[in-house]
Amino acid sequence: MPDFVLDFGRRARTGTAEAILCGHKTPAQIDAILAAAAQAGQSVLLTRLDPACFSALDPAHHARLSYDPLSRTAVLDEPAAPAVPQPGIGIVTAGTSDLAVAGEAARTLRFHGFDAPVIADIGVAGLWRLMERIEEIRRFRVVIAIAGMEGALFSVLGGLLAAPVIAVPSSVGYGVSAGGRAALDSALSTCAPGVVAVNIDNGFGAACAAILVLRAGGPAPQPQAP
Amino acid sequence: MPDFVLDFGRRARTGTAEAILCGHKTPAQIDAILAAAAQAGQSVLLTRLDPACFSALDPAHHARLSYDPLSRTAVLDEPAAPAVPQPGIGIVTAGTSDLAVAGEAARTLRFHGFDAPVIADIGVAGLWRLMERIEEIRRFRVVIAIAGMEGALFSVLGGLLAAPVIAVPSSVGYGVSAGGRAALDSALSTCAPGVVAVNIDNGFGAACAAILVLRAGGPAPQPQAP
Amino acid sequence: MPDFVLDFGRRARTGTAEAILCGHKTPAQIDAILAAAAQAGQSVLLTRLDPACFSALDPAHHARLSYDPLSRTAVLDEPAAPAVPQPGIGIVTAGTSDLAVAGEAARTLRFHGFDAPVIADIGVAGLWRLMERIEEIRRFRVVIAIAGMEGALFSVLGGLLAAPVIAVPSSVGYGVSAGGRAALDSALSTCAPGVVAVNIDNGFGAACAAILVLRAGGPAPQPQAP
Amino acid sequence: MPDFVLDFGRRARTGTAEAILCGHKTPAQIDAILAAAAQAGQSVLLTRLDPACFSALDPAHHARLSYDPLSRTAVLDEPAAPAVPQPGIGIVTAGTSDLAVAGEAARTLRFHGFDAPVIADIGVAGLWRLMERIEEIRRFRVVIAIAGMEGALFSVLGGLLAAPVIAVPSSVGYGVSAGGRAALDSALSTCAPGVVAVNIDNGFGAACAAILVLRAGGPAPQPQAP
Amino acid sequence: MPDFVLDFGRRARTGTAEAILCGHKTPAQIDAILAAAAQAGQSVLLTRLDPACFSALDPAHHARLSYDPLSRTAVLDEPAAPAVPQPGIGIVTAGTSDLAVAGEAARTLRFHGFDAPVIADIGVAGLWRLMERIEEIRRFRVVIAIAGMEGALFSVLGGLLAAPVIAVPSSVGYGVSAGGRAALDSALSTCAPGVVAVNIDNGFGAACAAILVLRAGGPAPQPQAP
Amino acid sequence: MPDFVLDFGRRARTGTAEAILCGHKTPAQIDAILAAAAQAGQSVLLTRLDPACFSALDPAHHARLSYDPLSRTAVLDEPAAPAVPQPGIGIVTAGTSDLAVAGEAARTLRFHGFDAPVIADIGVAGLWRLMERIEEIRRFRVVIAIAGMEGALFSVLGGLLAAPVIAVPSSVGYGVSAGGRAALDSALSTCAPGVVAVNIDNGFGAACAAILVLRAGGPAPQPQAP
Amino acid sequence: MPDFVLDFGRRARTGTAEAILCGHKTPAQIDAILAAAAQAGQSVLLTRLDPACFSALDPAHHARLSYDPLSRTAVLDEPAAPAVPQPGIGIVTAGTSDLAVAGEAARTLRFHGFDAPVIADIGVAGLWRLMERIEEIRRFRVVIAIAGMEGALFSVLGGLLAAPVIAVPSSVGYGVSAGGRAALDSALSTCAPGVVAVNIDNGFGAACAAILVLRAGGPAPQPQAP
Amino acid sequence: MPDFVLDFGRRARTGTAEAILCGHKTPAQIDAILAAAAQAGQSVLLTRLDPACFSALDPAHHARLSYDPLSRTAVLDEPAAPAVPQPGIGIVTAGTSDLAVAGEAARTLRFHGFDAPVIADIGVAGLWRLMERIEEIRRFRVVIAIAGMEGALFSVLGGLLAAPVIAVPSSVGYGVSAGGRAALDSALSTCAPGVVAVNIDNGFGAACAAILVLRAGGPAPQPQAP
Repeated sequence: MPDFVLDFGRRARTGTAEAILCGHKTPAQIDAILAAAAQAGQSVLLTRLDPACFSALDPAHHARLSYDPLSRTAVLDEPAAPAVPQPGIGIVTAGTSDLAVAGEAARTLRFHGFDAPVIADIGVAGLWRLMERIEEIRRFRVVIAIAGMEGALFSVLGGLLAAPVIAVPSSVGYGVSAGGRAALDSALSTCAPGVVAVNIDNGFGAACAAILVLRAGGPAPQPQAP
Repeated sequence: MPDFVLDFGRRARTGTAEAILCGHKTPAQIDAILAAAAQAGQSVLLTRLDPACFSALDPAHHARLSYDPLSRTAVLDEPAAPAVPQPGIGIVTAGTSDLAVAGEAARTLRFHGFDAPVIADIGVAGLWRLMERIEEIRRFRVVIAIAGMEGALFSVLGGLLAAPVIAVPSSVGYGVSAGGRAALDSALSTCAPGVVAVNIDNGFGAACAAILVLRAGGPAPQPQAP
Repeated sequence: MPDFVLDFGRRARTGTAEAILCGHKTPAQIDAILAAAAQAGQSVLLTRLDPACFSALDPAHHARLSYDPLSRTAVLDEPAAPAVPQPGIGIVTAGTSDLAVAGEAARTLRFHGFDAPVIADIGVAGLWRLMERIEEIRRFRVVIAIAGMEGALFSVLGGLLAAPVIAVPSSVGYGVSAGGRAALDSALSTCAPGVVAVNIDNGFGAACAAILVLRAGGPAPQPQAP
Repeated sequence: MPDFVLDFGRRARTGTAEAILCGHKTPAQIDAILAAAAQAGQSVLLTRLDPACFSALDPAHHARLSYDPLSRTAVLDEPAAPAVPQPGIGIVTAGTSDLAVAGEAARTLRFHGFDAPVIADIGVAGLWRLMERIEEIRRFRVVIAIAGMEGALFSVLGGLLAAPVIAVPSSVGYGVSAGGRAALDSALSTCAPGVVAVNIDNGFGAACAAILVLRAGGPAPQPQAP
Repeated sequence: MPDFVLDFGRRARTGTAEAILCGHKTPAQIDAILAAAAQAGQSVLLTRLDPACFSALDPAHHARLSYDPLSRTAVLDEPAAPAVPQPGIGIVTAGTSDLAVAGEAARTLRFHGFDAPVIADIGVAGLWRLMERIEEIRRFRVVIAIAGMEGALFSVLGGLLAAPVIAVPSSVGYGVSAGGRAALDSALSTCAPGVVAVNIDNGFGAACAAILVLRAGGPAPQPQAP
Repeated sequence: MPDFVLDFGRRARTGTAEAILCGHKTPAQIDAILAAAAQAGQSVLLTRLDPACFSALDPAHHARLSYDPLSRTAVLDEPAAPAVPQPGIGIVTAGTSDLAVAGEAARTLRFHGFDAPVIADIGVAGLWRLMERIEEIRRFRVVIAIAGMEGALFSVLGGLLAAPVIAVPSSVGYGVSAGGRAALDSALSTCAPGVVAVNIDNGFGAACAAILVLRAGGPAPQPQAP
Repeated sequence: MPDFVLDFGRRARTGTAEAILCGHKTPAQIDAILAAAAQAGQSVLLTRLDPACFSALDPAHHARLSYDPLSRTAVLDEPAAPAVPQPGIGIVTAGTSDLAVAGEAARTLRFHGFDAPVIADIGVAGLWRLMERIEEIRRFRVVIAIAGMEGALFSVLGGLLAAPVIAVPSSVGYGVSAGGRAALDSALSTCAPGVVAVNIDNGFGAACAAILVLRAGGPAPQPQAP
Repeated sequence: MPDFVLDFGRRARTGTAEAILCGHKTPAQIDAILAAAAQAGQSVLLTRLDPACFSALDPAHHARLSYDPLSRTAVLDEPAAPAVPQPGIGIVTAGTSDLAVAGEAARTLRFHGFDAPVIADIGVAGLWRLMERIEEIRRFRVVIAIAGMEGALFSVLGGLLAAPVIAVPSSVGYGVSAGGRAALDSALSTCAPGVVAVNIDNGFGAACAAILVLRAGGPAPQPQAP
């Protein structure tokens, strides 16, 4: 019996593909999953893959993995870039330090065929930085907003936009904001309706939700057995 | 100077109207807001309006308010039912006790012209109850899911649906789940991508987000000054 | 031995007078303090005096107390209004529900001879409400900002003003923001330097700090024995 | 006086043997315990034995210890495999990352003479994975279920099985589920009666409890002095 | 559509019957459930039914409900006492204050046909009280232990018994033990293997788990569709 | 598009300059910011710059950075010492261990042209240490007080001084005071009005606030566009 | 079987008598205990006896109970005042609001034959209030110190006294100090060795500990069976 | 100005000497303190001195420091063993892992001239281990008890002894007991009066308190100026 069960049907069933969350897995476990995916001819997204863990993987897998150390993501047998750009999703960050999470979101979107621009470092401590870009941001149909510290960006954006805002609190901070709970609580407590939240640093989940939101306008998926 | 600033432009700016959160306001403060809204000819939604507070309002306002004690919502000068049903949003609850929050969501949707069916008491402790309704739920383009206790419904739904799931943790519970933090943490920690969360008991916010999601498929709104 | 020791020298020593925090005191304890203060010819400020507790006080004290139920403050033998207005301190609130805390701050300032205007309900979910008043707010030398929920107002103000901002998180909120810890953590985690915080709902402390800040420009007080 | 008191009577008294929790012990302390156990002719189970600590043990002990780095367990003078298989206990995990905890449970069971199969990676985000194995799981008389993240598996299993479910929340997760408290709270808050919980990552305790449960059907143990 | 879905098949499927957790339900909701159960000829257990809520129920239901205010439980159309006593489960409490929770457990057991004696007030601050009854307790095949405050009883019992101990932390306490989290953490952190825990004050869940444990010795249940 | 937006106008707008919080940034990100600042001819303050990260920076930047490892601060192109000393701000610490935070505050003040003396190790466990220096401390117009552990210094100072006290809780401590939350809660809960708090270890923020307080005595700043 | 087991031997075994903690008991439970104690001819101390609960007791017990509503304590068949005063223990409080807890301690001491003076309202925000009484306090051999809010009194006292200080954090406070956890953490984190803590509001426990401390100087008690 | 102020008068003033808590100090800071103490001819106790930090100290200090790596304590110019043994204080630990904390307590006592035996590994999961030593423990006049995990030892001891029990919760544990908060809450919530607590892992503070308790029987110390 293998130690894992790959859910290759998830993309058809739920609209987004399964990813391998590597944070608590050993290199041997990840190697086994990669081997199975390769054998099945499936491209796979890996998240939370630390550089040390990446280095410890079977060298045979290194060549087939495109690895990005900042976002700690890798893709096995990454498909060629999408022929047709799919606009509609934008990513904004409060600070430069949030770019690792933004990268996880952007890489997840690209894995699903979406190109999303990143607008970085527009936190509200210098409101002009946000206002200078607000018209550009208003053009997105869904916005992924990433902020640590006090997470005030979520509320200001939510009050200015008619698009749904998917808030990703980041673990950027120290003292009471260390770990991201303060930013998360800000996202959840916002006075601005239309803001929804995912887990701290969960760029992957935000990207998946953004894809589903964009598709919510299309025809309903056909039912399937569980 | 009045004690409040009504944001009647919010609907145009962000797609959903401002509501009056009554929980921490005195009857006198609410009466003043109602008078101003009535004078401006604006219909207004009130949330978290406890029966005792409702009773203490100016009797002149009672006649113009449609009040629902279970969801603790009221609408001033509620418009007639929408001529054209706007399907696409469904509300599901894990238990009967979650119906107060479901009511807040449904009333908010109706205030904005959306009719949303409520499918109640399908928590996963009796999985057949959910599976019996799953085809019906799959027809929604956005699902608002409400659960307290351990909030396992969010993950099961997220794994079965291709629609975005807006999780509303409810404060239904006791011991470690009292207050709703356990259900909230379940929503945020879910293994099923595509699930997003709002604050505990925030039926209003979930409804607003659902409306924005449905509209995300349409043309982008025109920019406006802040 | 009495059950209390009044510190009438505090105003001379620290620049602000002692107040009687009534929240955990019995009416009999408060009555004894009032009697002692009256006998000493001292005006006294009472905070957190609930209406029920106020009603239970010795009727003889009622006539000498000016009581405000919204802010739950009272003043014994309140002095006449200050002859010379002392501008410089402004109070802003994110919502109407924060006016109880604003009242505690304003009453404390008035007790010390300062008149402070209150600018209410300018939270950032409708940024135009804040921007419409920002020039007026920029004229203050110290700003007391009161916000519950996610407390995003603190950061936006801190990024726009050159005056120190004393953030008072309020307990206005529900779910993760119930009790005010989310707003407090936002105030403390703010990216905008120049923002300092006091305890949740502590309008009294914010007012005292604002007075000390204004006086920090004057000559240093003469040392005294402890 | 030695620094430890070995409780070799525990197996007779309570039905399960004492284990040495190595997490906070120095190699010298563990070596002393091993020497005493070896001298007494007792087989001993060690848990939470990190590879670095294992390497630092007296080399004389290495030969007599069977060490498993994934589960961080070792057995001194491990007895030969049990002659008669003792079915009845099954172990299921939500994810591959939970296998370290599953290993601790399985090794503890084997130390007591029980062979328990592990069914891995059947978390509810892909409900078909669980449903595909449910008949197999229904054959167990006690189920040890291990899940991190949001721990939804506990409730779904509890609603499908007539066997007691011993939930072991794992520390697998990040953000609000980091450390395992979210999964633990899910186990405790479950709507499905029949689910009981042990401490986070406590595979050892779950295995001991499962053994006691299986034996609860037999004759009551004879009383002994404390 | 009714607001509830009764799961009358749960007893067959999982071995214990569904109960109605009344804490967050309105009298009208409970009345509707009772009417449906009565019509279906099903006896039903109600938990967390406060006296005020009980009084507000339809008087027609009062006659068919056996209500116990201490444990806040009621049974609709309670069946006659079981013809054959089913020994094996014992309930022990650390203090007199824990009897409300003990009552919920005992009533749940009786509803399922089990008679369980309650041994009260044997907390370890007076160890002789426990030691005086220990032989009696050793005769049970499963022990439900209820304790608030620091919950030391769980560990002492777990070290003395060969039966599984189901720990129910109670909310009895003040200061750091208010609400029961200290007792719960003691149950989970216990050094004595064989102790498992349920949610704070969850006498119902402990009783259901005890029943399943007793039955775990019998033949495995036949599989059923979910 | 660069990954950052430098806010060189902040000093003019808010009275204090932007600093680069390095804790969550990569050396490459910091190098890019330094290059941009150097090109713009701007001096820049860096905080939370760990020695390892400092070493990993572009060697070309090392020569232009004055780095202090205890306070983990660096200044790019540090200006010559201010010609005119600007007294008025004093820094006091409860212990020697708080000097790292004191250093961050002192370096921030110096970056803005203020010379602030540090009075170290006068915590209240030896009250004579504080009383011996109290006259010296009374001469400051603003006091930055830094304390970890239980933070009792804040209240004692607040009761003795007429200057505003900016409390900086430090993360010095262990057990319940590990991380600084106990000291922070002491600062916020103080009985001494006039004490305000910033985030744990936030010497930078305290220094900025102290500067604004000193300037609050001057003419109000001219309004600017956001 | 009664619902309680009175431990009349505790005084002989541990030096202090058992008390009845009434907070979670029903009047009927308390009445039964009182009846048993009266029949055994034992005086009994009751703590946390709210006025409403006291009123609901059997009127026959009222005459034999000396009840103090501020400290919520009562004594059944209180013995006459001790013939010989037993000095050595002093009680000090930071504020007037702490007198309820001080009363519980003083009543407990009196029940055991100790007369303890209470020195009230000497918190450190006005340090002179403490210094004025410090010589008097230095004469005690054990000091019970009670403080809420930030609990700075514990550290200042601990640094000035050579007697052991038993800190009782009180629940007096609001915001971050509501419930007493901030004061408790201050007591535990104190820099002043010699300070020990009991639970929040636990005047009873502090009194018992003070008695044991005083007796620790005498001959060791004779061993007894558990 | 040096960075520290040594309080050599503390022993005379409070009965116990100051110790240098090294956890957050740099080697350079510790070296400076040691040099000053050596010059003043004072013996000094250092706590929380990690091996790496000890190695980094000035080699000139190594010869004069007696260092114990398990308890992480060192003494500069340790005096010869006390001529006259001072019995009365005993140290007991629940497990072998608690010996590091026990060592800190024992070394602190020895530094003050007290010899205290350590009775290790008598936690209540094997109650016979405690009962076998209870007569020996009853001979102590003060007992320092150290336990991690669930800390049940504190309550059992408190119910058996007439001596004051100073509970030291240790950080030994994992899951909900990681860090020691569960053990601390058990100590504070104990049903056994006479138990007092110090901070987690605070062997030093427990030893100081034990010394004060023993001395509380002697003549009161003469007052001194603060």
